Amino acid sequence: MASARVGVIGGGQLARMMQQAAVALDIELVVLVEDPESGAGTAIPRHVVGPADSEVHIRRLASMTDVVTVDHEVLDLALMGRLADEGLVLRPGASTLGIAADKLAQKELFRQAGVPSPAHVEVRNAADLTAARDRLGGLVLKLARGGYDGRGVWVLPDPDTAAGVVSRAERDRIPVLAERVVDAPVELAVLVCRSPAGQTVVYDPVHTFQVDGMCREVRAPAGLQAGLTRRAAELAERVASAAGAVGIMAVELFLAGDELLVNEIAPRPHNSGHHTIDAAMTSQFENHLRAVLDLPLGDPSLRSPAAMVNLVGAEGMDPRRVLADGLAVDAGVRVHLYDKEPRPGRKIGHVTVCDDDPERASKRAWEVAQSLGTTGRVPEE
Amino acid sequence: MASARVGVIGGGQLARMMQQAAVALDIELVVLVEDPESGAGTAIPRHVVGPADSEVHIRRLASMTDVVTVDHEVLDLALMGRLADEGLVLRPGASTLGIAADKLAQKELFRQAGVPSPAHVEVRNAADLTAARDRLGGLVLKLARGGYDGRGVWVLPDPDTAAGVVSRAERDRIPVLAERVVDAPVELAVLVCRSPAGQTVVYDPVHTFQVDGMCREVRAPAGLQAGLTRRAAELAERVASAAGAVGIMAVELFLAGDELLVNEIAPRPHNSGHHTIDAAMTSQFENHLRAVLDLPLGDPSLRSPAAMVNLVGAEGMDPRRVLADGLAVDAGVRVHLYDKEPRPGRKIGHVTVCDDDPERASKRAWEVAQSLGTTGRVPEE
Repeated sequence: MASARVGVIGGGQLARMMQQAAVALDIELVVLVEDPESGAGTAIPRHVVGPADSEVHIRRLASMTDVVTVDHEVLDLALMGRLADEGLVLRPGASTLGIAADKLAQKELFRQAGVPSPAHVEVRNAADLTAARDRLGGLVLKLARGGYDGRGVWVLPDPDTAAGVVSRAERDRIPVLAERVVDAPVELAVLVCRSPAGQTVVYDPVHTFQVDGMCREVRAPAGLQAGLTRRAAELAERVASAAGAVGIMAVELFLAGDELLVNEIAPRPHNSGHHTIDAAMTSQFENHLRAVLDLPLGDPSLRSPAAMVNLVGAEGMDPRRVLADGLAVDAGVRVHLYDKEPRPGRKIGHVTVCDDDPERASKRAWEVAQSLGTTGRVPEE
Repeated sequence: MASARVGVIGGGQLARMMQQAAVALDIELVVLVEDPESGAGTAIPRHVVGPADSEVHIRRLASMTDVVTVDHEVLDLALMGRLADEGLVLRPGASTLGIAADKLAQKELFRQAGVPSPAHVEVRNAADLTAARDRLGGLVLKLARGGYDGRGVWVLPDPDTAAGVVSRAERDRIPVLAERVVDAPVELAVLVCRSPAGQTVVYDPVHTFQVDGMCREVRAPAGLQAGLTRRAAELAERVASAAGAVGIMAVELFLAGDELLVNEIAPRPHNSGHHTIDAAMTSQFENHLRAVLDLPLGDPSLRSPAAMVNLVGAEGMDPRRVLADGLAVDAGVRVHLYDKEPRPGRKIGHVTVCDDDPERASKRAWEVAQSLGTTGRVPEE
C-alpha cells in the first residue's frame, strides 16, 4: 500500500528516473507505455500498455492513480483539456502543456509575464519571410509545434532552405516563427518547481552546451555573477508562475553580454536538470513527484559543482556492453543508462561528475562519456 | 536489454534499495519473493514468487540472471552450497553465508584472521554455563543461529533466564555462545566491499546506536581519531578477506577505551550503511551490485557528515499517511520508506540528514523521524 500513486504518460528516461525518487518515498508509479520492455517499462512494475494519445488508456491510467503527469510533450492536447475539464487531475495542467507545445504561445506568455525574449514574428508565407528578414536581420526559423533536440529549428538558414521550410509548413499548417539570432549567447537553464499549494523552489542556473541543437553537456552552477543568478532565477520564476506550472518547469535562457533573454520552456523534468540526481539535495525528479502530489518541496541546493554529459547513440555504440570500461575510468562518476537502443543521435544515458573544481568535473565527465562510446567534442567556451 | 541481470533471494528493503542503484546502471533485478505486493516487489518489475529456501524457485531465479545475491540470511545453507557446487553463481558465496549465519563460526573466523573479538565460550548445557560465568564474569548469551535485531541475544541475563535460554537451546539443538560483556562500548560498523577481481573499497567507520539490540541511529563519520579509523578499516578488511566476502560485508566493532574488538559480520548491504545512499559518492547498494557483477567498484567517500535514523513501526503509526508532515519539518531530509506494514518493532523506513554539523544532522533526523511517528529517545553519548 503505497503512500500515493502517480500515473505517467510516456515511458522514456524521465519516467525511468522518476522511479528512483518514487521508490524512496514509496510512491507507486504507473506508466502509460507502448513498449513495456524498454525505457521506463523495465524499471517500473505497473504499466498501462497503449499510445500516449489514447483516451481509453489515459482514462485507465487516471483510474489507477491519484494524479497524472507526463514524461514527454507529444500529447493530444484537445483530449487532455477535455479530460481535465471532466475532473482528471493532470499536473502540469492542460493549459500549461498547451502553452509549452506551441512556441508562439510561449512568446505570448513571455510578453504577458513581462520577461524579455528574442524578437520574433510569425511567418505564414514567403512574403512574411521577406518581411521578417527585413525587420530582424539574421534569423532562426522554428516550427511552432513538434520540434525537439534541434529538430524543427533552422539557424541562419540560406534563402532556399528558409523558403522550403516556410512552404512545407504552410502546406502542413504548422505555424512558423522567425526569431532574431542572438549572437554567441551563453545558454542557461533554470529549473523551477511549483506545487498546487503555492510553494516554489528554484534550482541554481546551469550552463548548457548544445551541438546541432541537442544538449550535450550541462555545468552546474553556471558560474554567473550573483546579480545575474538572481535575475535568471527571477525571470524563470515569473515565467513558471505565468504559465501556471505545477511540477518542474525548465526555463531556457540566453545570456548575451549582461542581457538575459528567455528562450523556451519545458513543463517537466528536463535534461538541464539531470545532474540534480547526484549533485542537488533533492533531485528534479523527486521534487516533480512531490509537487504533483502537493507534498512539501525539497531543498534544491547544489551540494557540489557538477558536470553532466549526455551519452548520445552512434553506429555500433552501446554503453551497456562497455559499462565496466567506463566505470574503470573514474571511480567517482555517476552513470545513468536509460535502457534504450543506441540509435544514432538518440540520448541513451548520461554521466555526472561532482567535483569541487568545475573544469575538472567537465573533463572527467567527458572522459567517461567517451569511454562509453560517445563522440563529439567538449564544447569550447 | 539490460546491461546485466542480478537475482536477489528475498524481497525486503535491501532488495528495494538495490533497485534505485540498478535503475541507474540499467541492471535488471529479479527478486525471489513470497509476496510481490510489498517491500521490493512493488518497486521491481520482475519476480519469482516463492519461498527463499525453495530449490526449484532458486534454480528458476538463477536461470533468469547472471548472478544470484541475497537480501537476508534466512537461507537453506546446505541447498545453497549444493547449488554453488553445481555452478550456480552465488555472491556472496555459500561458505561466506555459512560463516555469517553461525556466530560460533564467526568467532573462529576472527581467530583465524587474527582480529581481536570479545572472549567467548560455547555453552551446551547448565555445567558449561556455570563454567562460562566463572571464566568470563558478566556475560552475553547469544544463540549462534537465527537471531537478528536483538532477538536471540541476552545481555547480562539473570541466572534463571540464562538457565532457561540454555535448556531451550539444548532441546532445539541450537548452539549457544557466552561472551564476555564489553563495558559501555562505542559501537561502530565498517562496510567493506570486495569484488571477485580482487578490488576492495572500505567505507568510513560509522557510529551505531542500538536500543534493545536494534539499530536506531547511525552517525557518519564515527568521529574517531585517525589512528583508530585506520585500525577499524584494517580489521574490517582483514575479516572480509578471511571470510571470502564478495559484495558488501558489514563488520560491527566495539570500541572500549582505545581497544577495538570485532563483534559480528553481515555479508550484505547493512543498516549501518543506509546513509551511503545520500551521503556517499557511491551507495552500498550500488557497490554491492557492481561487486557481484565483477564491475569496477565506486568511490565510497563520504560527501558530508550524516545521520540516519530508522523508522520503527509502532501501534497506529504509518509514515506513509503522514509523509507530508515529515517532509514539511525539514526540506533537506531524505526519506526512505520500504512499503512495509508498520508492525510494532519492525523497521519500515529510515531518514537521513546530511549536514556539515554532525550533531545538528542527528537532531534534524530525529525531528523528522518523530514527526513520522517513530518513538524512542535520541541515544545519549
